Amino acid sequence: MSAKTRPSAEERLIARYFRPLARHPGAFGLADDAAAITPPPGCDLVLTTDGVIAGVHVFADDPPDLMARKALRMNLSDLAAKGATPVGFLLALSLPARTKKSWIAAFARGLGEDAKRYGCPLLGGDTDHTPGPAAVSIAAFGAVPRGKMVRRSTAKVGDRVFVTGTIGDAALGLKLRRNPRLAKRWRLGKSAAAQLVLRYGLPQPRNALAKAVLRYASAAIDISDGLAGDLDKLCRGSKVAVDIDVAQVPLSKAARAAITAEPGLVRAVLTGGDDYEIALTVAPRKIAAFRGGAKAAGVAVTEIGRLRAGEGARFMHGGQALNFARPAYSHF
Amino acid sequence: MSAKTRPSAEERLIARYFRPLARHPGAFGLADDAAAITPPPGCDLVLTTDGVIAGVHVFADDPPDLMARKALRMNLSDLAAKGATPVGFLLALSLPARTKKSWIAAFARGLGEDAKRYGCPLLGGDTDHTPGPAAVSIAAFGAVPRGKMVRRSTAKVGDRVFVTGTIGDAALGLKLRRNPRLAKRWRLGKSAAAQLVLRYGLPQPRNALAKAVLRYASAAIDISDGLAGDLDKLCRGSKVAVDIDVAQVPLSKAARAAITAEPGLVRAVLTGGDDYEIALTVAPRKIAAFRGGAKAAGVAVTEIGRLRAGEGARFMHGGQALNFARPAYSHF
Repeated sequence: MSAKTRPSAEERLIARYFRPLARHPGAFGLADDAAAITPPPGCDLVLTTDGVIAGVHVFADDPPDLMARKALRMNLSDLAAKGATPVGFLLALSLPARTKKSWIAAFARGLGEDAKRYGCPLLGGDTDHTPGPAAVSIAAFGAVPRGKMVRRSTAKVGDRVFVTGTIGDAALGLKLRRNPRLAKRWRLGKSAAAQLVLRYGLPQPRNALAKAVLRYASAAIDISDGLAGDLDKLCRGSKVAVDIDVAQVPLSKAARAAITAEPGLVRAVLTGGDDYEIALTVAPRKIAAFRGGAKAAGVAVTEIGRLRAGEGARFMHGGQALNFARPAYSHF
Repeated sequence: MSAKTRPSAEERLIARYFRPLARHPGAFGLADDAAAITPPPGCDLVLTTDGVIAGVHVFADDPPDLMARKALRMNLSDLAAKGATPVGFLLALSLPARTKKSWIAAFARGLGEDAKRYGCPLLGGDTDHTPGPAAVSIAAFGAVPRGKMVRRSTAKVGDRVFVTGTIGDAALGLKLRRNPRLAKRWRLGKSAAAQLVLRYGLPQPRNALAKAVLRYASAAIDISDGLAGDLDKLCRGSKVAVDIDVAQVPLSKAARAAITAEPGLVRAVLTGGDDYEIALTVAPRKIAAFRGGAKAAGVAVTEIGRLRAGEGARFMHGGQALNFARPAYSHF
């Protein structure tokens, strides 16, 4: 039997599970060394990379489609915060040798559904076996008008600080996932607890808001490591300061109930991470238009503070600044 | 102490070791969620991803700078084969919790040196801790004139097949690295054996040839999984066939000596992979110009065959087609 009659197992795996996701013409059906994209005229390409490792960013026994979705959505959230429209992504997938075909099929199905939902097709990839846990690294690309990527470092004194959605649900969901008995202590019903757990497992990136971020935000950051740390990064990057009244931070009903039962959870809510919401700043004259854009996009936004001179973000609780031992999730 | 005074350990690690590599203005000093690049006017962006895992693609005790260089060079080789000029890359780095600072410093140093050497700056990245082995995944970007990425699937009957450099050194180097006593059996001196081992550890991607590939190649593929399998992919993709006389395949002195001592090694040479050479096809009327371009680039090229009607690549040895049990390296 000569080489020509034997596509490798790797080729077959790619053809079967991943080629159907590679609908972009520049992906060449995953049958080349590389992809090629023509950036939209007058646009910059926004590039980001983020990944998940089984047992680190997702539970080792999480459904594979959830792992795929989370990895893609983490990257989509970065694109949304930068005001970018998704163009596509590259996938690097490392799997233990004994990974079942059904695992790969479910992974590819979840990935494909989200690629379609968010208009972000698979452009290419790399698959390997690893002696470690399953790991997926994604590099995602988006487009913004030339020079217009929304930065972290461009906020101005007087701008108002907004956040999307609700903060802290994923941090509480992670605690519940680790210890389901907390639901009782926090006086949460099954549905409320499940909602929080799902917010950890399956981020809801705010790509619907990207156009409004692009048009109206003076600066923005994806909230992935906790509002406290990420807003602090935006403030330090922009050389401005803000005092956030914790009472203004938008919470879900479930999170509010949990904090009522256990007030110390407010720290986890502000520093736990995995929110995949957007913190952004808006100049006062643009606020009305921004609110209109957010409403049209169907994304809830809440004003939580006003930038002042100084450097960094403080969170005020009962008239005092909270001190965080660990202001943001850090892998190191 | 408030959040603002405490950049996380992850931020400090990035600032210290990786920010110096991020000289591209669109990397924003690695201080944003994403990078932004303005593609050169009239160009497509070529995208590729490849990675290495300690203990899989490199030895677990290889120097960290070699791991970094290999990961970047694997991607650079893909860009070279597509005729693309490097633009930059994203780095996803997963490290065991106990990784020493000195390891990270050496990794970043090697990466930075190669980024500079090949004109491919760091644009952004992601760092994580992993319970598995150290792993690095790179997504690299290059530029080609619009619509001109050199494909695998565009070779024509009558075109001549060329390869760069020498084939099989890395496959033999890997065997030697695993069993240094083979050097004696293969009648290799220390220097010849060391050369082969280095060809495995440190690929020499042919980016110097990228412009000539772009101008003169009708099709091209990066040889990473073995000449036999990769040339077969090019032929199947292009729906053409070729018979390669194994005697025409360019070998280093060391590889030739090893094969003389142990003729069966010819299979490892053709299927072992990790060559990071380029196999390409050139229409007859462009051969002289291609040879001139290769000479100007300082890259040795060797004509090894001529495309005919059919589908797939055969390797002829002593008048018979070689049958490969495993025509190409496959991770699955």
